[in-house]
This record gives sequence, C-alpha cells and structure tokens, in this order.
Amino acid sequence: MTPDLQLSMTTPRTIWWADGKVHMIDQRQLPQTVEIVDFDDVQGIALAINEMVVRGAPAIGAAAAFGMAVAAQGSPVADTATLLADLRQAKTVLDAARPTAVNLSWATSRFLQMAERLAGDGAMVNEIAKALLAEAEAFVAQDIEINQRMGRHGAEVIPQGANILHHCNTGSLATAGYGTALGVVRAAHVAGKHIHVWVDETRPRLQGARLTAWELMLEDIPMHLVVDSASGLLMRQGKVDVVLFGADRVAANGDVANKIGSYNLAILAQEHGIPCYAVVPTSTIEPTLADGDQIPIEERSWLEVATLAGVPVAPNDVLVYNPAFDITPHRYLTGIITEEGICYPPFEQSLKHAKLRAEGRDS
Amino acid sequence: MTPDLQLSMTTPRTIWWADGKVHMIDQRQLPQTVEIVDFDDVQGIALAINEMVVRGAPAIGAAAAFGMAVAAQGSPVADTATLLADLRQAKTVLDAARPTAVNLSWATSRFLQMAERLAGDGAMVNEIAKALLAEAEAFVAQDIEINQRMGRHGAEVIPQGANILHHCNTGSLATAGYGTALGVVRAAHVAGKHIHVWVDETRPRLQGARLTAWELMLEDIPMHLVVDSASGLLMRQGKVDVVLFGADRVAANGDVANKIGSYNLAILAQEHGIPCYAVVPTSTIEPTLADGDQIPIEERSWLEVATLAGVPVAPNDVLVYNPAFDITPHRYLTGIITEEGICYPPFEQSLKHAKLRAEGRDS
Repeated sequence: MTPDLQLSMTTPRTIWWADGKVHMIDQRQLPQTVEIVDFDDVQGIALAINEMVVRGAPAIGAAAAFGMAVAAQGSPVADTATLLADLRQAKTVLDAARPTAVNLSWATSRFLQMAERLAGDGAMVNEIAKALLAEAEAFVAQDIEINQRMGRHGAEVIPQGANILHHCNTGSLATAGYGTALGVVRAAHVAGKHIHVWVDETRPRLQGARLTAWELMLEDIPMHLVVDSASGLLMRQGKVDVVLFGADRVAANGDVANKIGSYNLAILAQEHGIPCYAVVPTSTIEPTLADGDQIPIEERSWLEVATLAGVPVAPNDVLVYNPAFDITPHRYLTGIITEEGICYPPFEQSLKHAKLRAEGRDS
Repeated sequence: MTPDLQLSMTTPRTIWWADGKVHMIDQRQLPQTVEIVDFDDVQGIALAINEMVVRGAPAIGAAAAFGMAVAAQGSPVADTATLLADLRQAKTVLDAARPTAVNLSWATSRFLQMAERLAGDGAMVNEIAKALLAEAEAFVAQDIEINQRMGRHGAEVIPQGANILHHCNTGSLATAGYGTALGVVRAAHVAGKHIHVWVDETRPRLQGARLTAWELMLEDIPMHLVVDSASGLLMRQGKVDVVLFGADRVAANGDVANKIGSYNLAILAQEHGIPCYAVVPTSTIEPTLADGDQIPIEERSWLEVATLAGVPVAPNDVLVYNPAFDITPHRYLTGIITEEGICYPPFEQSLKHAKLRAEGRDS
C-alpha cells in the first residue's frame, strides 16, 4: 500500500495477514467485545465465514482470497499437482460456507485459475503459494483503495457542518476496510467538514446500532443513534442535510437494491428536498440488469424479528414477513457515488461511463 | 352495558371490576405471560400505574377511576368528612403515579368532585361509595362504547380483503377495551371483510410486536409482524391497501401527534396513493391547539434504544436521540376517524362539527 492508502490508527481493519496467519475482528461479538481471531487453516476460515465472524460482501471475498492463500501455504513441500488438488478442495470447502455469497465463489475461482496458470507456466509450489498470498493482500489493498477514492468523491457533496443520515453498516466491517457510504463519512470528517451522523439502528439485525455506531465512536466522529422510524421527524425538524447508504446491487438504469428501509429513506428525503446518494464501487453495477424489478427480494428467518439475542420480543408462534432488502427506483436518488466519480441522472449513461473508466484503469 | 357493547370472548379487557376488586392484565409480562393481577387498595393501584402494569392514556384514566372507587369502598362506616379526606389523599397518591398523564388527574378530579357534590347533597357514605363504583364502571363502558362506534365508522372505509398496515398498539390494551385504530381492525374483521394486518414492531418499545400481535392472534385476525422499515417495500409491492394509526393529540387543523414513525407511514402512503387514517375519540381533539407545530416532542431514555429486552444492542456509552412522538401534518391524512363519523378535509370544519356532535350527545 502507498502511504496514501494507510488507514488511520482507529479505522478498524476487518481482515489482514500477519505472522503467517489471517486475522479478523469477530463481528458477532461487537460492539460489547472486540476480539481478534486468527486462522492458519482453510476449515477455520470457512467456519468463520459460515458463522458470520466476518460478513459483508467485499469482506467475505477477502476472507475467501486469504483462505486460498492459506491452503497454498499449507503444502509447501508438495508437488504442483498436489497443490492444485488442495486448492480445488479448499475452493469446495470455502464456497459451501455461504452458498449465496457471489463474492465468495468469484474470489476462489479467480485464485484457483491463477494457481493453474502459474503451474502451467512451470512455477514451483512455493512460488505459487507466495504469489497467491501477495494476490490476497493486493485484493484487500485494492478494495481499501477503491473505498478511499469513493470517499474523496463523495466528500465533495457533503456540506460543511452537515448532518448525515446513514443506514445499515457500510463501513470497514462490511468491506476490506474504510467502507463505502461510511467511507464518504470518514473522508468528510477528515476533510474537516465538522459533520454529525444520525446512525439508524437498522432492524432487524441492528447493523447500525452494533457496527456503525462502534466504528464512528472509535474515530470520534460525532453521532447519535436513532430508531429507523425517527428519520421522518429528523428531516421535518431540518436536522438532516444528506442521506447516504450503500447498495448490494445496482441495475443499469440506476435502481438499487439495499438493506430494507433504504427505499423509505429515499422517499422521505425527496419529500423534504434532501439529497440522497447510494455509494458503491463500479464492480457492483450490473450492465445486464435492466432495472430493479428484476431483483428478487431475499426473505430471511422470522427469528431475526421475533427474538433478540435469544430473547423473544413477540408472541412465540407469531407469523413474520422478513424481507432483507428493498429496491429504490433511480428517480429517488440524487446521485450514485463511485470510485470513478459521482454518477448523476440519466444513470444509464453516467453508470456506463463510470464502468468504462474503471475498466480502462484496470487494463 | 347493552348486549351491543359486549366484547367478544377473546377481546382482552384491560381493566375491570369483579368480586370486590379491580382486575388488570399485567402488560409488562405480555406477550410471554398473561397474568391477571387484582387490587383492593389505592396504593396497589397507584403502583400498578407507576410500574406500567397498565398503560395507554384511556386505560390509565380508567385505573384512576377505579382507584377512587376503591378508596371510597375502603371506608364504609366512616362519616362523609372522613370519606372526602380519604378521597383527597387517594387523589394525591394516584396523581403522583404518572405525573405527566393528563387522563389520570382529570379522572381523579372528576371523581373527587362527584363525591363532594353528593356529600353536599346529604348522601350517605355508602351511597357515595356505590355511586363512585358505578361511575367507574360507566367510565370503562363509555370508553368501550366510543371505541366500538369508531370501529363501525372506520370499517366502512376498509375494502373487502384489505391489507391494513397498523402502527404501535391502539388496541384493548391501550384503552378500556376494544381499541381505536385496532377497533377499526376488529370491526372490519367481524364484518367479514377478510382483512389481513401488517403489524409493525414499533421500535423502540415494540408495542406492535408485543401487544398488537398478541391481541390479533388472540382473535385469530390474520396478521404478519414486520420491522418498521419494511413499510415502503410492502407498499411498492402493492401489499398495503390502507394505513391506520391512533393519535395522542389532534390539533384544530387536523395535524396529529402520534408514536414515532407515524409521519413516515403517512408520507409513504401518500407517495403510493394509499389512504391513511388516524383513529381517535373526539375527546382527543383540542380546538385551542392551532396546529401540530405547537406540540412539544417528548424525548425518552436512551436505554429504550440502546438495549432490547435488557440486552445491550449498541456500544455501552453510545449517544442516543429518542423522540417518542412525531407530528403528521394534516395534508398527509385521508381522514380522521372518530366516534361521530369520519372527518375529511378541510379538517378545521369537520373536526369542529364532530366535536359539537359529541358534546350534543353528551348533554
């Protein structure tokens, strides 16, 4: 990493390599306990992904990358055929940890192909292992670098002294580090904009209360926690200047899928004349996805709503509808902040151009 | 009560007189445990109000009424001077139980004045005691009767097969029985409209998850529990036909103060072309309150947000903003449902007429 890409002392890193092991913050124990766990075997990393020690699409991708690197480290004296067999086995184990996480199998495929290519070129086992580890570290560094570029672009539209309403967790903990929407918050704070953040708790899994509040408090970024449904009152009281959230999927027309409640915030913002931005890397934009109506809504367990930390908060046999995401049509978004700059309507064109710029940069 | 006013077998009663004692459902233990507690002394009733065994403005008023009746029962052989002294002492104890609950001191004042009037007219102690008990039972019966009239009026605007989105608890448990917005739900269900209710959990105190879900399940009214921020998605999916909530205060122009999140629902409903009604007795309308901007927003403890069922859900020293209410400007309301019929815009006139009709009926 260049010095520019160093995270501040207090910006938490989600996953990193040190002393021959992969280290992670155990996110299940946040915010009450900050425990760093480490792994030097594929099974341990797969279990950590499965049990949500690490979560968030880019963070899961990084964990899988390190998982493949660890698998290669594990067989330093083997021949390349054994190494490739070990890596195929590692990919099977890792992919099964969260079957629906596309970043996971995308990362393991990329690393397996890299090893096969190097082996085909006649590389030695220890050379391949070294290359995979370097690639995993580069993977993490690139995610952080992209997030920091997003942050710099986004900070330009954050007014001095702004009150920012933020949804879910889009921070260091959801990525390899720094964050997407929370990266914009970080960049605005560091730029001396004297911001204040309304952190909504984000029921049912409380990523705002548990993770975003913790990240902001760690860096002394001024904030208050609110329930999700306080957003309307805050806006009516003139206490919100900009709304920021991330996105899990972005269609070609600018419709975005994100954590349940994002759509509500976008409508409320528009009704109050407040700008609302989604913050995403260009890798999240799907040119082949025409609009948000094509995106299925994942339903999750009723237990997330009816219980908390094992404590029932509703009648025991209650029926629950628990959609994890909603779709915000592009007409409610002021802009979509990417590492290639801020895309404005018409989004078909601006998103396409951002994607092209990112690919040009990559090649 | 006339047969018309009987509650169904499964409609919970909040507070009632039987076997010489006041009975209440201990609402603190709902929904996991349904425990009926009873009291035959003023101190016990005051403690029950203070510790929120009973809650909800009309329900607290009813508890205070029974408290005064119990105080009179306690001194059957005394002279009227002693009785009045006992009642003044009872009023002091009861009023102190929840100092901000206006229904409480309003009820105790009304009962003390009634006793003074009867004593002035030369009534005997046991006659006064009997009259106060009858008045307390009439107080409860009248609240239920008003709720049932609201329900009948409201049911007329509920379409056949409607999906109703309901906020907070406005049911039997918040009133003497039957409920306001939940009374409309009950009436529509009994009228065979085959309704289904989306019960939002209503953070931070979870009145929807704990109380409304319990009441509806008790009567087999079809429902699903959702998080508060699922409302936008439900509306966009065409799964909401009408939004109903109660109100704590109604200004002369139709602005309403209600549980935090009501304003969000009203804006979202309007954006999706869905009707949205507040359901209130005419006694809640304040002709001297010009508009909602005059209503202060009560802030409550940070612990309501930072902990859930006693379990911490945020960093221990997190800052919280916890407004209990928001204001919904009248332009977002389709109508205001009262026991005197449904008031439509312009609300200044329709609310005034409803209030006059109610007073005419009273006199």
